Amino acid sequence: MIKRAIDLIEEGRFTEARSEILEMNAVDIADLFEGLDTEKLLVMFRLLPKETAVDVFSYISSDLQEYIIEAIADNEIQTIVDELFLDDTVDLLEEMPANIVKRILKNTSKDKRDLINHFLKYPENSAGSIMTIEYVDLKKEMTVREALTNIKKVGVDKETINTCYVINKNRKLEGIVSLRKLIINEEDIVIKDIMQTNIISINTHMDQEEIASIIKKYDLLVVPVVDTEDRLVGIITIDDVVDIIEQENTEDFQKMAAMHPSDEEYLKTGIFTSAKHRVIWLLVLMISATITGNIIKQYNDILQSVVLLAAFIPMLMDTGGNSGSQSATLVIRGLALDEIQLKDVWKVLWKEFRVSIVVGFVLAGVNFIRIYYLERTDLYVAITVCLSLFITVITAKLVGGILPIIAKKMKLDPAIMASPLITTIVDAVALITYFGIATVLLNI
Amino acid sequence: MIKRAIDLIEEGRFTEARSEILEMNAVDIADLFEGLDTEKLLVMFRLLPKETAVDVFSYISSDLQEYIIEAIADNEIQTIVDELFLDDTVDLLEEMPANIVKRILKNTSKDKRDLINHFLKYPENSAGSIMTIEYVDLKKEMTVREALTNIKKVGVDKETINTCYVINKNRKLEGIVSLRKLIINEEDIVIKDIMQTNIISINTHMDQEEIASIIKKYDLLVVPVVDTEDRLVGIITIDDVVDIIEQENTEDFQKMAAMHPSDEEYLKTGIFTSAKHRVIWLLVLMISATITGNIIKQYNDILQSVVLLAAFIPMLMDTGGNSGSQSATLVIRGLALDEIQLKDVWKVLWKEFRVSIVVGFVLAGVNFIRIYYLERTDLYVAITVCLSLFITVITAKLVGGILPIIAKKMKLDPAIMASPLITTIVDAVALITYFGIATVLLNI
Repeated sequence: MIKRAIDLIEEGRFTEARSEILEMNAVDIADLFEGLDTEKLLVMFRLLPKETAVDVFSYISSDLQEYIIEAIADNEIQTIVDELFLDDTVDLLEEMPANIVKRILKNTSKDKRDLINHFLKYPENSAGSIMTIEYVDLKKEMTVREALTNIKKVGVDKETINTCYVINKNRKLEGIVSLRKLIINEEDIVIKDIMQTNIISINTHMDQEEIASIIKKYDLLVVPVVDTEDRLVGIITIDDVVDIIEQENTEDFQKMAAMHPSDEEYLKTGIFTSAKHRVIWLLVLMISATITGNIIKQYNDILQSVVLLAAFIPMLMDTGGNSGSQSATLVIRGLALDEIQLKDVWKVLWKEFRVSIVVGFVLAGVNFIRIYYLERTDLYVAITVCLSLFITVITAKLVGGILPIIAKKMKLDPAIMASPLITTIVDAVALITYFGIATVLLNI
Repeated sequence: MIKRAIDLIEEGRFTEARSEILEMNAVDIADLFEGLDTEKLLVMFRLLPKETAVDVFSYISSDLQEYIIEAIADNEIQTIVDELFLDDTVDLLEEMPANIVKRILKNTSKDKRDLINHFLKYPENSAGSIMTIEYVDLKKEMTVREALTNIKKVGVDKETINTCYVINKNRKLEGIVSLRKLIINEEDIVIKDIMQTNIISINTHMDQEEIASIIKKYDLLVVPVVDTEDRLVGIITIDDVVDIIEQENTEDFQKMAAMHPSDEEYLKTGIFTSAKHRVIWLLVLMISATITGNIIKQYNDILQSVVLLAAFIPMLMDTGGNSGSQSATLVIRGLALDEIQLKDVWKVLWKEFRVSIVVGFVLAGVNFIRIYYLERTDLYVAITVCLSLFITVITAKLVGGILPIIAKKMKLDPAIMASPLITTIVDAVALITYFGIATVLLNI
């Protein structure tokens, strides 16, 4: 279907392509549009029925959105802005350059312009900036019949009608009633008697991470947003939350790999922006690796007399780093999913301690067999290496387990305490242990 | 409220506690139950109205579920199993030990038992094992009025009624109609004329990761599951998908930290299971670090004559590892979110090459200032270190960028190509470069 539509468009048979396209989902049409050359894209876009066109518009990339808005007439812009949900309009304005924003606002009714300005004032990633205002509100004195008639009238323009909100004359949120309840109850029952009053709601200033965790915790499909005086101002639906969850996960992945987090797509980020996001942490870690270098310099004599010891340094450092990063990752993830609480710090340490003894024992054992029996390394060197490995693994796992919890306690993001930072600390501990044991065992 | 309820329970004032609890959300009641001692828990559980009790039951931990089922009478088990949605019953059975499973099945009607057995046959994490069968089906010849009457009758037992499915007499899926459409249309319109026929559906055998990506891509709240003959067999709702997304992300985090993925909670995993999940990759990586050790052994002469060179090895290795892990993380994440396709391999390499030149230049520059001007290291040693650093960063970023794409091409999970594996490769490259340059520049 997609293939055929593209062929028809390439051949300039636009009306035939139109009927193919109208069978498709808006997301797939948007995908198809991304691949078209801009002139053909514009012809196709104008041939779509208004509703489909706006739907597709909300799914295409901001580059294409910009191109289309530049190319179309003022009254066409007006149609798009009228039909877009308010939160999509706000997203659009945030992406467009100033001259396009000006043109869009010029073609927006004063009411909607005021609303948009209000929206743009909420802090980024707060409930206020994510919410949509297209919800259904009811009064508690209404009967089910009146409520349904009301929904029938206004429902077509709402983001969801599956959950309706009961407010008083001051717009204070008093209850929630699902469309399901309205359908299965008799028509003359009063809303007050079927509405649910223990409501989970969120404040306009709540951060998106917290919103996502509330929605997950209570298995909600939609959550009402209220201002400081408990007045209903908007709703946030779970499909927006799915995007938030992925965005928060991406940020965690980036922080854990020692990068400045960014929500730009990989291929769309410029070279210098990419370099900037990466270089700062690399510099910090590079300079802190000096400490490790200085430790080696200090034990130069030992290395000079048993230069073989140098050959085991990478293995010790890598295994220590990997062990610590395993623990840190598990704890960071546990904290993010609320499976680990701050009060669990001793449980975590005790667990890491026991796991590290098992893991350290296996690793040191295998290593001893390899270097003593197979490679016939000197016994005392072999013991030095394996004992250091054992101690390093235990230290690494304890450090990896505790640092994320300390970060959380200090109101920092635990994700920054991931492998790169831990590696640097563990490297130092590993080397001091290694050379310390060598000094004693090898009588240097 | 929660605090007060706990106090009342502690004092044995259960009926007063009951009215406090009934004001609370089922998720919060479940949280509260987790903290109670088991006898009081049982009293409270039995005091709850049937519907709330089952709701709470579906949210408590499997340990508590097991305890409750062991303690209550057969007819009480029957009530719970009757009221639970089928997918929750299946989840429950998968968690319980054999004797409890037997007791639950004994108290299940034959029809439901057959359904459960059917469910348990689907592969783990497939659509069939996640879906629920509590959906509303309609016929296309029905009018809106008939459809609404039908929904009113059956709606209370369904997981969702917001989306209804139109099937023919062979249960083949013919269309979808939202409750919103039913509400806003006139009562004598026929379903056939308002149903949507371009349906996104998934097959019973599709894996959960793919299901999640389809739901995200098309912004769906619910998706129908069909068998190989296009017959409707169930639905999957977005709230289950949110859990899947978090689970898949957790697996990626674990794989990227060189662990065997597991969906058990951190604090609930036993010591030996934890150790087993971690030790295998650590062993593999430890043994492959031998390669790096052998490189050092081979260049022992160089180290012997300029032992200072050893001091820069940790910095080189760490910076290389960190640079590579940044690139790998971005590409792995881009692949997971479908922002990077296999065909983008050259774009990725070209981008990483340019970014790495900028990053490598800055790092080598800062390092040169530090070791030559501030620490007054020998000029040729400083050049050796900085040139190796520059080359290592470029190599690391190219390796980090390409390996996840190769993994994906080989149908492996890109997440396994994360920092630990890349570190091992980059370490080797860094050391060969380092000693190679040293040999030439320092005339050793």
